[in-house]
Amino acid sequence: MAKAAEQRQADRSIRPTRTSVFKSVFAKSVFTGIGDDCAVLRLRPGQESLVTTDFSLEGIHFRRDWHPPESVGHRCLTRGLSDIAAMGGEPVAAFLSLALPRDLPQSWVGRFARGLINLAEKYGVTLAGGDTAESPGGILADIVVIGTAPKGKSVLRSGARPGDRIFVSGALGGSAAAVAEMGSGLKNENKNKKLNPSNYRRHFYPEPRIELGRVLREKGLASAMIDTSDGLSTDLAHLCEESGVGAELDAALIPRARVGKLSKKVDLDLALHGGEDYELLFTVRAGKRIPAQIAGVALTEVGHITRGPKIFLWIPRNMVHELKPRGWQHFQR
Amino acid sequence: MAKAAEQRQADRSIRPTRTSVFKSVFAKSVFTGIGDDCAVLRLRPGQESLVTTDFSLEGIHFRRDWHPPESVGHRCLTRGLSDIAAMGGEPVAAFLSLALPRDLPQSWVGRFARGLINLAEKYGVTLAGGDTAESPGGILADIVVIGTAPKGKSVLRSGARPGDRIFVSGALGGSAAAVAEMGSGLKNENKNKKLNPSNYRRHFYPEPRIELGRVLREKGLASAMIDTSDGLSTDLAHLCEESGVGAELDAALIPRARVGKLSKKVDLDLALHGGEDYELLFTVRAGKRIPAQIAGVALTEVGHITRGPKIFLWIPRNMVHELKPRGWQHFQR
Repeated sequence: MAKAAEQRQADRSIRPTRTSVFKSVFAKSVFTGIGDDCAVLRLRPGQESLVTTDFSLEGIHFRRDWHPPESVGHRCLTRGLSDIAAMGGEPVAAFLSLALPRDLPQSWVGRFARGLINLAEKYGVTLAGGDTAESPGGILADIVVIGTAPKGKSVLRSGARPGDRIFVSGALGGSAAAVAEMGSGLKNENKNKKLNPSNYRRHFYPEPRIELGRVLREKGLASAMIDTSDGLSTDLAHLCEESGVGAELDAALIPRARVGKLSKKVDLDLALHGGEDYELLFTVRAGKRIPAQIAGVALTEVGHITRGPKIFLWIPRNMVHELKPRGWQHFQR
Repeated sequence: MAKAAEQRQADRSIRPTRTSVFKSVFAKSVFTGIGDDCAVLRLRPGQESLVTTDFSLEGIHFRRDWHPPESVGHRCLTRGLSDIAAMGGEPVAAFLSLALPRDLPQSWVGRFARGLINLAEKYGVTLAGGDTAESPGGILADIVVIGTAPKGKSVLRSGARPGDRIFVSGALGGSAAAVAEMGSGLKNENKNKKLNPSNYRRHFYPEPRIELGRVLREKGLASAMIDTSDGLSTDLAHLCEESGVGAELDAALIPRARVGKLSKKVDLDLALHGGEDYELLFTVRAGKRIPAQIAGVALTEVGHITRGPKIFLWIPRNMVHELKPRGWQHFQR
């Protein structure tokens, strides 16, 4: 990563915008240029720009009593970085729009910023601007991430063909397991059940699969790709819809995350439908060899692409079911 | 505009992201390509990218009982387009993140979209993606606009030098006058005072000065530029700060907007400090000739740049005051 980041730094220049509230918190590590009406980005010739925007809203995407501020900042940026990873791109700059309630302690903002900036620095991303406002209710963040890929080389959702094999990175359901656990605390005891983030890393500090996505794109291994932000069943449906195909998944092969103090495997349902794992789901042409891991992340074959349009799930004892997308709806009420 | 828009269309390609809620409303006029994790933008070689993000939050930037939905959509996009204009750039694509309360009528969303899309079409801007969420309170919009300018040619805030003359486009204070009028209704009669938008166009349907900004950049006329989103006193202070200079303004020269049924000139205070007019404030080297209008917009010389760092205001009868920035704070509570 370090070398790639240096290369990017040399090949582009960024003039960030400057916003007073950010200045106090982010200035040192972030603002390398002058303030202006717009940030100015110069990319290498031969590159295309990737743009993604994602909300992180209090009560919808996080809860102040469940999530440490550092986790909220980390997850906010991960949402955008993961979209860049799913195109096989390299992230360049992020823009944060942040609306804060008047009574929010400054310490919350500082810790939020630290979580976000630590992740940005890890991937050589410049926080280049954004907007600030007073919030009419709750903490509201909207992250924009801009990345690059060589022209015409971004890995799209639409490239899957019948016969392609389906792979997933890491393990699934770990993030949803944390939400289920915290939610059960609410229901059964009518009080908050705080979790230790180190036992639920994939929920509190998910790592975007930037390096894996880049390698898959560079080596031409992935024919189609998407990140599992909404859950396997929903994200596979998106990929199939864009490619005009169907799929068959083998339930026994789906890598289920281990969570909690006892490292217990999550239920199949969470692995199938739980969102916000930010793993990569991708397809590979029949002849291509995929290593057991890339960039330190395990890769598992979980099924194959069919003519479609439906998606079927094989479960043990030769049962087969149609798999309907019922992925992540955030904190359902 | 039409020819420039055609040229841009020919020279770039955009693959937008697709979001289900947008699809229903925006699909026909907006989504020209396939959906994916990111939108893919390809710009002409030799261009730099301009990026700007702006919140439009209910209760902070607009009120549902004061602003027709079409006006909210129009103003939301104007905020971003005006930042592009202030760099002398040409807008290319917009991304809208929109969080809506569960009980918001679909008709509100449709009318909001119409206001935004009409303006986008006028300037050849593709609505290329965004995010949607349920809002925990109030309507929340965040607009991202991406534009381009030839490399190194964007007009920055930092280029003003002592001796430069200061110009402003159009007339000032018209937007703030509408807010003052609606606010007075609240205070005096404890009820809403709805205004007729056609008597207060600059507030309800402000036109971003894209064409003017582009011409000033192409002809090399502006040494520094900013848009008057926060009000003349605050925006001139921003420009002076970035340029390391001061300024003197002549109160008698400041073009005051005419508003209401009787086309009454607004008070000097509103023209000096009222925000959200989205006019352009720019500086010009001593020798250059500036026409009385460009692209149909009147241009007025209002003062000149000094060594600084303070900004002084000359008012009739030879009085001179230091001018402190006290521009737009949205709806102060």
